[in-house]
Amino acid sequence: MTIQKTIDLSPSPRGFHLITQLVEKELGKLPTEGILHLFIQHTSAGLTINENADPSVRKDFEQIFNKLVPENQLWYSHDDEGSDDMPAHLKSSLTGTSVTIPISHGRLNLGIWQGIYLCEFRNHGGRRRLIATVIS
Amino acid sequence: MTIQKTIDLSPSPRGFHLITQLVEKELGKLPTEGILHLFIQHTSAGLTINENADPSVRKDFEQIFNKLVPENQLWYSHDDEGSDDMPAHLKSSLTGTSVTIPISHGRLNLGIWQGIYLCEFRNHGGRRRLIATVIS
Amino acid sequence: MTIQKTIDLSPSPRGFHLITQLVEKELGKLPTEGILHLFIQHTSAGLTINENADPSVRKDFEQIFNKLVPENQLWYSHDDEGSDDMPAHLKSSLTGTSVTIPISHGRLNLGIWQGIYLCEFRNHGGRRRLIATVIS
Repeated sequence: MTIQKTIDLSPSPRGFHLITQLVEKELGKLPTEGILHLFIQHTSAGLTINENADPSVRKDFEQIFNKLVPENQLWYSHDDEGSDDMPAHLKSSLTGTSVTIPISHGRLNLGIWQGIYLCEFRNHGGRRRLIATVIS
Repeated sequence: MTIQKTIDLSPSPRGFHLITQLVEKELGKLPTEGILHLFIQHTSAGLTINENADPSVRKDFEQIFNKLVPENQLWYSHDDEGSDDMPAHLKSSLTGTSVTIPISHGRLNLGIWQGIYLCEFRNHGGRRRLIATVIS
Repeated sequence: MTIQKTIDLSPSPRGFHLITQLVEKELGKLPTEGILHLFIQHTSAGLTINENADPSVRKDFEQIFNKLVPENQLWYSHDDEGSDDMPAHLKSSLTGTSVTIPISHGRLNLGIWQGIYLCEFRNHGGRRRLIATVIS
């Protein structure tokens, strides 16, 4: 059985943001067993799963990603939309644009320390749209 | 319901290549709602989803990946198959070997700027094989 | 149809470890056609698919990941759990916490050179838990 839902996210500042509770609330009742596929319809933002307790992890994520893919490189050819644009595209492919999570006993079966991150790589990314598909 | 299809890709030059239309054509009619899992059966190529309009993005991808995982490092121990081989393996794990895309209203529900990239990390990668699985 | 199973992995040393055979053995009989979603319930380990024959590839993976995300950076704010902790979180988002693999003719339809890697990013990561979900 397939259930699908669109989830619209309000604009977030650049950085990594926990959206686990928001997603769970939007999905409502889940099947006993299956998977959730969560997909972001953008090329300058991403989704990942990581530590849900200490905000300093999400702060360090922002710094490390900026070092991995630095802005303002003279050799970037795609630079019309600002210095944060081309790095945002690349970062989106490093995290990926979707996460898939097992559903067990009617709940997302994340590890105790795991949360879903929205990765906002633009300075002003605006609203972001997710497509959630539950397969059971 | 599960539908599965093998898609053979002709050799591509090293770089990032849009294959969205080719994949859609190969798949033919899709179910109303579900997911597409697209998997590449190789360890020196990858799949990712990114910007579908400006070819300069794909050109910059090639440069950034080469800086992230440089060739000709003296400390590589796996170097029998050429200087592009070990970096290709690593890059394949950075992009990943599969993408999963929601299907809605009988179509791939990609964002307006999203396309599927074949990431060819070898200088002479040859033919590449994809396994497409549609779950609905 | 959905089949789900928990797979507990014994502690592994830091590095990249082939777990394909272990996973296949744990799963037992597979459906004719479908997908396997394999998910690791941790934020300092990951899963990826890569070369299954030459152990030097997995050795080089360890070196390259350490260069991509170095330890002991003074600007890390999340450093209470040791110098390998924050890098482990980031590496986990680079590989991802799950892999999805097509099932064809009752077997994992991996390419001939592909294997499933457990990516252990901690010095002493301990036991790791996987959730395997087969959808057909």
